[in-house]
Amino acid sequence: MVHVRILVTLKPSLLDSAGRTVTGALDNLGFSEVEDVRIGKAIVVRLKEYDEARVRAMCDKLLANPVIEDYQIEVLG
Amino acid sequence: MVHVRILVTLKPSLLDSAGRTVTGALDNLGFSEVEDVRIGKAIVVRLKEYDEARVRAMCDKLLANPVIEDYQIEVLG
Repeated sequence: MVHVRILVTLKPSLLDSAGRTVTGALDNLGFSEVEDVRIGKAIVVRLKEYDEARVRAMCDKLLANPVIEDYQIEVLG
Repeated sequence: MVHVRILVTLKPSLLDSAGRTVTGALDNLGFSEVEDVRIGKAIVVRLKEYDEARVRAMCDKLLANPVIEDYQIEVLG
């Protein structure tokens, strides 16, 4: 049994409107050291066995939108 | 300038209905090695300076709901 964490983030060139809103909200709360916030997904998948090519296929087919998102795969063990 | 990644996840005792749906969808696509999926948020914050207590305060006040969610802070540098 293997746990894999997939971090799905908007491509850096795209405006992250949720992140922009959170940046403003943190500033309003007094956290003036915050310069930027970007919000992505952290998907933890528990697998019977790990095969990187199959995990990439899951990302490309379902977990991420490769047109607007990047993803990183981390094997947690 | 410091980047900090905050991983916000539902507490393990709570049912993750989005994760459950994705587990089923992956199984339908032929990824039968998937046993479980849990979906959280990965928030990357760019800060002028890092102070752990202040980042924890951001999480407790705005970024996470401590009643139902856990969070982990990773300093990316």
